[in-house]
Amino acid sequence: MKITIAQLDYHIGNFEGNLSKMLKAVEEATAAGSDLICFSELATTGYPPRDFLEFNDFIRLSNECIDTLCSVSDNIGIIVGAPSINPDLKGKNLFNSAYLIYKGKVQHVQHKTLLPTYDIFDEYRYFEPAKSWAVADFKGKKIALTVCEDIWDVGVDDPLYTIIPLDEMMGQKPDFIVNVSASPFNYRQAETRIHIVRANVERYGIPMFYINHVGAQTELIFDGGSLVVSPDGNVYDELPYFEECIRHFQLEDVMKGGRHQVMSKSKIQLIHDALITGLKDYFRKLGFSRAILGLSGGIDSAVTAVLAARALGPENVRVLLMPSQFSSSHSVDDAVTLAEKLGIRYDIIPIREVYDVFMDKLSPFFEGKPMDVTEENIQARIRGILNMAISNKFGHILLNTTNKSEMAVGYGTLYGDLCGGLSVLGDVYKTEVYELAHYINKDAEVIPMNSITKPPSAELRPDQKDSDSLPEYDVLDPILYQYVELRKGPQEIIDMGNDPALVRRILRLVNINEFKRYQTAPVLRVSPKAFGMGRRMPIVGKYLN
Amino acid sequence: MKITIAQLDYHIGNFEGNLSKMLKAVEEATAAGSDLICFSELATTGYPPRDFLEFNDFIRLSNECIDTLCSVSDNIGIIVGAPSINPDLKGKNLFNSAYLIYKGKVQHVQHKTLLPTYDIFDEYRYFEPAKSWAVADFKGKKIALTVCEDIWDVGVDDPLYTIIPLDEMMGQKPDFIVNVSASPFNYRQAETRIHIVRANVERYGIPMFYINHVGAQTELIFDGGSLVVSPDGNVYDELPYFEECIRHFQLEDVMKGGRHQVMSKSKIQLIHDALITGLKDYFRKLGFSRAILGLSGGIDSAVTAVLAARALGPENVRVLLMPSQFSSSHSVDDAVTLAEKLGIRYDIIPIREVYDVFMDKLSPFFEGKPMDVTEENIQARIRGILNMAISNKFGHILLNTTNKSEMAVGYGTLYGDLCGGLSVLGDVYKTEVYELAHYINKDAEVIPMNSITKPPSAELRPDQKDSDSLPEYDVLDPILYQYVELRKGPQEIIDMGNDPALVRRILRLVNINEFKRYQTAPVLRVSPKAFGMGRRMPIVGKYLN
Repeated sequence: MKITIAQLDYHIGNFEGNLSKMLKAVEEATAAGSDLICFSELATTGYPPRDFLEFNDFIRLSNECIDTLCSVSDNIGIIVGAPSINPDLKGKNLFNSAYLIYKGKVQHVQHKTLLPTYDIFDEYRYFEPAKSWAVADFKGKKIALTVCEDIWDVGVDDPLYTIIPLDEMMGQKPDFIVNVSASPFNYRQAETRIHIVRANVERYGIPMFYINHVGAQTELIFDGGSLVVSPDGNVYDELPYFEECIRHFQLEDVMKGGRHQVMSKSKIQLIHDALITGLKDYFRKLGFSRAILGLSGGIDSAVTAVLAARALGPENVRVLLMPSQFSSSHSVDDAVTLAEKLGIRYDIIPIREVYDVFMDKLSPFFEGKPMDVTEENIQARIRGILNMAISNKFGHILLNTTNKSEMAVGYGTLYGDLCGGLSVLGDVYKTEVYELAHYINKDAEVIPMNSITKPPSAELRPDQKDSDSLPEYDVLDPILYQYVELRKGPQEIIDMGNDPALVRRILRLVNINEFKRYQTAPVLRVSPKAFGMGRRMPIVGKYLN
Repeated sequence: MKITIAQLDYHIGNFEGNLSKMLKAVEEATAAGSDLICFSELATTGYPPRDFLEFNDFIRLSNECIDTLCSVSDNIGIIVGAPSINPDLKGKNLFNSAYLIYKGKVQHVQHKTLLPTYDIFDEYRYFEPAKSWAVADFKGKKIALTVCEDIWDVGVDDPLYTIIPLDEMMGQKPDFIVNVSASPFNYRQAETRIHIVRANVERYGIPMFYINHVGAQTELIFDGGSLVVSPDGNVYDELPYFEECIRHFQLEDVMKGGRHQVMSKSKIQLIHDALITGLKDYFRKLGFSRAILGLSGGIDSAVTAVLAARALGPENVRVLLMPSQFSSSHSVDDAVTLAEKLGIRYDIIPIREVYDVFMDKLSPFFEGKPMDVTEENIQARIRGILNMAISNKFGHILLNTTNKSEMAVGYGTLYGDLCGGLSVLGDVYKTEVYELAHYINKDAEVIPMNSITKPPSAELRPDQKDSDSLPEYDVLDPILYQYVELRKGPQEIIDMGNDPALVRRILRLVNINEFKRYQTAPVLRVSPKAFGMGRRMPIVGKYLN
């Protein structure tokens, strides 16, 4: 039996586009003599469709895709993920299902059992879990159909669910497992995914075809890396990361045993590639091609500019250099050097005059009040207006250049440097931004060394340095990691040897700045716990602040 | 048996504050000779605690509150909602539980079965559902303990769940039902709540004590309106809306039958009172007392200013009038009239000079390009900077004055008039804003009639009117309602007699402006479907656009 895996980049709600990709893949698989082609989870709708699932009209359009897939299934079986309607009055209205289509009709539907409802996942919001399990018969083979999370409660220390769907199917003696997935990337995901898929294969002793989404949907990046694992528990093949790919497999060969070495990419390489995918797809799926950003001469905007140029092409990236009276001369030089090296358009717009007029208007109200963060914010917001003005006039999307450390402690100006349609580095701690810069410079100096080595500064008042108001990033970031990623309490973090007052101050900063994050652009997610849809906090909370 | 209901305003994560409120209520109930006092759902933590529930340290603090409540329960039973830890390794780590505390210890715990995971609710994210049900014995009575949603699958046409927890308890012959709730307000909620509670009482023939939260947590407003319903299905008593209240009941009297007429408040009166509660609690719980907003002379900012003055006191509200060359003279006059009538501080800061300097800086780039939305946005953003500057310098929270119609179709400038820490009217359609204005003016003209009767305009270019780019609001709003609230598809809305091109244009506008709503302040929720946490849409979606 020849089985094709189609690892494709779908677009939420773009039924026409998604269907046409699938039809092309069916054609290719048919031409290759495949018996069966497998697409991923909710492939008709794109993943995650979120509250569009609550629109009957949206479900109708997905069902039409299933009908069309039926019409091309005379000579090939098609496994595809899509929502299906729950006929029972009780319970949620939908299931998240894997369809087996063949000979012009739907032959079998297996609903998803384990509905992830944590971090970025909201599946219990929409779907009723499966309550029955049957294997699918196809050309003399029995297939155990599973949807993504269904295999993720095996091989873990802390099971999230009380049932294991594959356990329920094994009495029916399936020949192999197909898992249709939409499992978002984080820098640990590839390793975890391989572990989980292998743990299942080892538990059941039959091979698995694991088909993942690839591409990005707003903040979520899908890395692909679809897997074929042989009954011996070895990986038979792994599809590429961050690329669409269609590949054919002979089941009989897979049965013989694994042979493939899995890819090995460093954390920083993965983050780099993921961010480029995230940028590319955000622009393409919104119908934009050009980006703008403010280039300060600092490391965050430098890394963002490089990533944008790599994702969109240098001809599609434009930067503004907006020095104030507090900017150091090297800032403009460093920014110009980088822009020239990247071959991106840059313009210099000094902000002093605008700032002076603002202060002139405001001075009657500010009389007798010392300078404070107000004046710093005005500078950042003037830059925001200028960036947005060029963006509005010429149709760019403004990129936000804030990093995760700043985002965490609220070191940034709402409506100022926090402006932008997409946050590129909002899930990358400052210490990781340095690693990214070194990675970018590994073969040649793209980012000026000066941008990397100088002490970080917002340059919003004379001789300002980040370390005036924050601890050094190599102290800050590990504390943030314990709190944000690992959700440790203050005492636990202090017990690791951190200064108690510092820990309390940082945790408080994280919590009181929820209001800023609430209004910040979506953040490309590369870690297991990113700010945004996967971390939901009350603004008026009074915990640790 | 004397039973006390404590309808209180908790604060998320403020364990000390929440506990001290409860201790005071216990004291009051003990003094009144009560046998039992009932608090509401997740009263120790405040509702909804959201991802704070994932922090062990947060749960530890909640458990400490339970311990303290035990210590004061020698002579009075205490029913209180709080998280409890799931001892089973499998499944989620927590339950959402109702505790019965008496004689110094926890006598009984019943977990919540039906975990709302729709609209603004995320309970399946955190909690494992109950799988067993037992009534609690207390002073010779049997109490059926339920948590909020547990009673909400009775009396509905489209059951969301496959089990009804009270059905499971009835074999144990409970004498009465206690429901601890945190059920957020919308303008239909009071009516629905009474219907649901009565439907349960009628189904089981025993009385119910229903205890609700009151007060606001960021966007969610809780209206209280706790209920005591007699076995005959009549309401015995209804606690006030939008106020804390502690009230004692003799069970024997409740058994005799209902006597109370329920409150009857108009939709607009409810919205008015809810918004004031939302404003009050947002400021109080964040530790702020003063608000600022831009007063344009239009109806939205006028209504917002009135609500702010009523919630915070006129001495705590400050407004900026920021006319441009496109502002009509009556705009400033209307704004001044209102400010003087309200007794709030106003300042006039014309923005023309700042605008001119911006245009001067940008003109080399804009050469040959026609004026467009860019220039309009610059004006709105200058106002944003000025509002934020005063806010930063003097410690106000800036109020966002956008209404739901504008929010829906993206008629507003990101980082401009969309600035602000809280959106007061973002869940109130423009046509409802008019109703609110008339309601405010019912006894005396507070809002100048001119602000109400003149054609709505953003005044960002000469003679601009909203109706230049949008249909009239009485056409727009009903279409938005069908799409946003009722989730109808385009064809269904067209079939109601609406112009097909207009419907498609409006639905497209709603969908392509998701990126703006993503970055807008939290919206006080007053309808069954507000923008914000209860409506989760992809930004890169391609449905209907």
